[in-house]
Amino acid sequence: MAQKLTKRDEDYSKWYNELVVRADLAENSAVRGSMVIKPYGYAIWERMQGELDRKFKETGHENAYFPLFIPKSFFSREASHVEGFAKECAVVTHYRLKNDEEGKGVVVDENARLEEELIVRPTSETIIWDTYKNWIQSYRDLPLKINQWANVVRWEMRTRLFLRTAEFLWQEGHTAHATRQEAVEEAELMLKVYADFAENFMAIPVIQGLKTESERFAGAEETYCIEALMQDGKALQAGTSHFLGQNFAKAFDVKYASKEGKEEYVWATSWGVSTRLMGALIMTHSDDQGLVLPPNLAPHQVVIVPIYKGEEQLAQISEKALEIKQSLERIGIRVKFDNRDTHKPGWKFAEYELKGVPLRIAIGPRDLEKGTVELARRDTLSKEFTAVEGLTDKVEGLLAEIQENLLAKAKTYREEHTYTVDSWEDFKAKIEAGGFVMAHWDGTAETEERIKGETKATIRCVPIDQEEEEGQCVYSGAPSKGRVVFAKAY
Amino acid sequence: MAQKLTKRDEDYSKWYNELVVRADLAENSAVRGSMVIKPYGYAIWERMQGELDRKFKETGHENAYFPLFIPKSFFSREASHVEGFAKECAVVTHYRLKNDEEGKGVVVDENARLEEELIVRPTSETIIWDTYKNWIQSYRDLPLKINQWANVVRWEMRTRLFLRTAEFLWQEGHTAHATRQEAVEEAELMLKVYADFAENFMAIPVIQGLKTESERFAGAEETYCIEALMQDGKALQAGTSHFLGQNFAKAFDVKYASKEGKEEYVWATSWGVSTRLMGALIMTHSDDQGLVLPPNLAPHQVVIVPIYKGEEQLAQISEKALEIKQSLERIGIRVKFDNRDTHKPGWKFAEYELKGVPLRIAIGPRDLEKGTVELARRDTLSKEFTAVEGLTDKVEGLLAEIQENLLAKAKTYREEHTYTVDSWEDFKAKIEAGGFVMAHWDGTAETEERIKGETKATIRCVPIDQEEEEGQCVYSGAPSKGRVVFAKAY
Repeated sequence: MAQKLTKRDEDYSKWYNELVVRADLAENSAVRGSMVIKPYGYAIWERMQGELDRKFKETGHENAYFPLFIPKSFFSREASHVEGFAKECAVVTHYRLKNDEEGKGVVVDENARLEEELIVRPTSETIIWDTYKNWIQSYRDLPLKINQWANVVRWEMRTRLFLRTAEFLWQEGHTAHATRQEAVEEAELMLKVYADFAENFMAIPVIQGLKTESERFAGAEETYCIEALMQDGKALQAGTSHFLGQNFAKAFDVKYASKEGKEEYVWATSWGVSTRLMGALIMTHSDDQGLVLPPNLAPHQVVIVPIYKGEEQLAQISEKALEIKQSLERIGIRVKFDNRDTHKPGWKFAEYELKGVPLRIAIGPRDLEKGTVELARRDTLSKEFTAVEGLTDKVEGLLAEIQENLLAKAKTYREEHTYTVDSWEDFKAKIEAGGFVMAHWDGTAETEERIKGETKATIRCVPIDQEEEEGQCVYSGAPSKGRVVFAKAY
Repeated sequence: MAQKLTKRDEDYSKWYNELVVRADLAENSAVRGSMVIKPYGYAIWERMQGELDRKFKETGHENAYFPLFIPKSFFSREASHVEGFAKECAVVTHYRLKNDEEGKGVVVDENARLEEELIVRPTSETIIWDTYKNWIQSYRDLPLKINQWANVVRWEMRTRLFLRTAEFLWQEGHTAHATRQEAVEEAELMLKVYADFAENFMAIPVIQGLKTESERFAGAEETYCIEALMQDGKALQAGTSHFLGQNFAKAFDVKYASKEGKEEYVWATSWGVSTRLMGALIMTHSDDQGLVLPPNLAPHQVVIVPIYKGEEQLAQISEKALEIKQSLERIGIRVKFDNRDTHKPGWKFAEYELKGVPLRIAIGPRDLEKGTVELARRDTLSKEFTAVEGLTDKVEGLLAEIQENLLAKAKTYREEHTYTVDSWEDFKAKIEAGGFVMAHWDGTAETEERIKGETKATIRCVPIDQEEEEGQCVYSGAPSKGRVVFAKAY
């Protein structure tokens, strides 16, 4: 706890990098662009996984596991897919090492070259649709609704912990349907699942929308997304759900016999969220003291710190602390009692602030006498003395309040940084300042590209609840029927 | 359900392969040696994961995630480790594809060659100890007890679903300790955790023991293992726990300052089980009708099949079936009600037998009148009519009974196929017939090697509860102080 964190308004990017490492979430590894997710960070990810997995199963999906490696030839089958991923693929070419004959240690054995190179999956549509070909014959085999938890590799040149790493963890859903409508409904359902998860579990408000053609997933007919706004005014795409049409079914020749006995190509979706959500979490809620965790995601929702001199006092305080811990755990609250004698209370306070534990209970000898504890909230940094009697109910209520407060705060921030803009000058100024900019667009890729070139802003999405409104494109002046969301983005 | 399974005594190996595919557990993929784990197989694996993860956390371990790729140079650092894994490594040499200039599709971009090749992890000791170097400075940082759930790749030449695949799923624990004794205790603790899991959760009896030097993990000072006996008389190593001494600490220069201020190398363990356990599960319990699942592992513990003619009967039966389902689910039993009208009851019966569902409840119109159901056990294939009243308790009791019965049956099988042998002729005969052979061994690698050469039997382990007994090596006649376990093995 030697040094304070860099402040957000001094250097937001540095603040983020320091926070990720010092709150024990993740760190860079010896492998370029690959991170190590540390136990504390992984425990938060496990809580995300648990809730998402529950939601997927609730909506009728099953988990499965497909190969890490994809034959190179599979990629070429869907033209825009290979176009999208070819430039960032890790390629396995050999399957053996040997001792160097000149004694230079271990080298690749050139006699063990693969006949066909294997790609480390950047996403699994191709290998999965090659498998589905054998699983789907008739309408009775549909829908097929499968999810996979896996690691994927995209060879990014500029990497940042959680936000953009060469390897990352994610889930990828891949579903097959008899009709276009059913597939579209599935893609929309999963968008809703993601939005609900982001808002009500992670306390991150999101805009639901559709990507423009140029921002679509490689191989999709339509990409739905949820977009969140970070505290530096940049947008972050937090999840995507794709309607793939019949593209992969055609590329891998997956047909089914309909009830009427006709052979038809299958309709598809895919959808995913990744460890990138950890970045969204950090940048939505955290402050200059460190991480702020919504209670739903906190590995420890409450930490109890004893304040004592000597072993006798510690023993007395520990007894009370364990009593409190047990009564909280009885109603399902996750509690840590930190009775380490290697660190002082002040150090511990700073540590748990840095790590974002929602509530801190401190107990000293005076508290024992008076039947009180000191209760501190991480989100507001406020403190109060409160009676041990009724503490369990109070803590339960406060955790719910913190969860709500974080969402409300993030919503307020987003509202204050969402601008409705009609002139190009104003557009540029607002984009520069940061935030979501709602503006008219003429619908052409050319205008989109030019705006990006001049301002670095991209169209985050066309909101699914876009209102019809006659207007003129903020750049070209051409007619438009509704506003889209622009922002600079991660 | 067209064809019956091959019988075990006709062709055991064919029986296994057919069963894995037809019970929807896994299948081969388009990538040589890599399998697809199908939803039903994955659901069983998830239940194993859940229980193991609980046990790891209960014994003070945390999960984390380390990179998939390992720089080639890391492997060379620990001499016996690289020796053990170099011959089966998938090697990443490039990070980009491009369009072939001669129009032959997508090719590897030779301009995107990695400076140092990356190995797809076959196990993670090296990358993890390179990370631990930065995490461990003082005795306060110890012990460090971390587990990872991950995929690993070992380029096996002859592969079999679950038993030996190029890519497999596993967990690998990696711990660091201040003293030799503490590390040995950890390795032994995890052996106990595995043995307890195998016997009391999977109903697979195991022998706990130590590997001989030649069978040890590459880089370990001692390898503990659990060994199970399959129904064809071959042994299967179901889990290993390694005491690594200071080998990796020295290779990666990981030292800590002791309480007394001295710099010392750290002591290590690692331990793992994999999707190979699925193979052990199948080959311990299943029969000629298909998979037999212990209730602890069954995705559906009970399946309810309606027997009806026409929609009206189905509606009446469904009402009763859903009532039963709910009352079972209320006490935590996993139930499937299969009311599909696309398949006949007989087809469903065979299907759920093949898939190993522990209990089947069939309800027909006569049952409705009489207030009964037909209840069938998968393990004994016995059937009885029983009253709906009291069914929940009965089912709960039966599930516990089936779990116990499977363990007892497997124990009996093992006892009947464990032989105490003192002559070389007898040894060869018993090994040929199949089973565990308890025999004296002179303790030399040479004898071990010769026995393997002549009979294909390996020393599965030196049992940890080995009795002291003077004797003569079954091969060399040299003196021995106790019996070890020989068998042919997977």
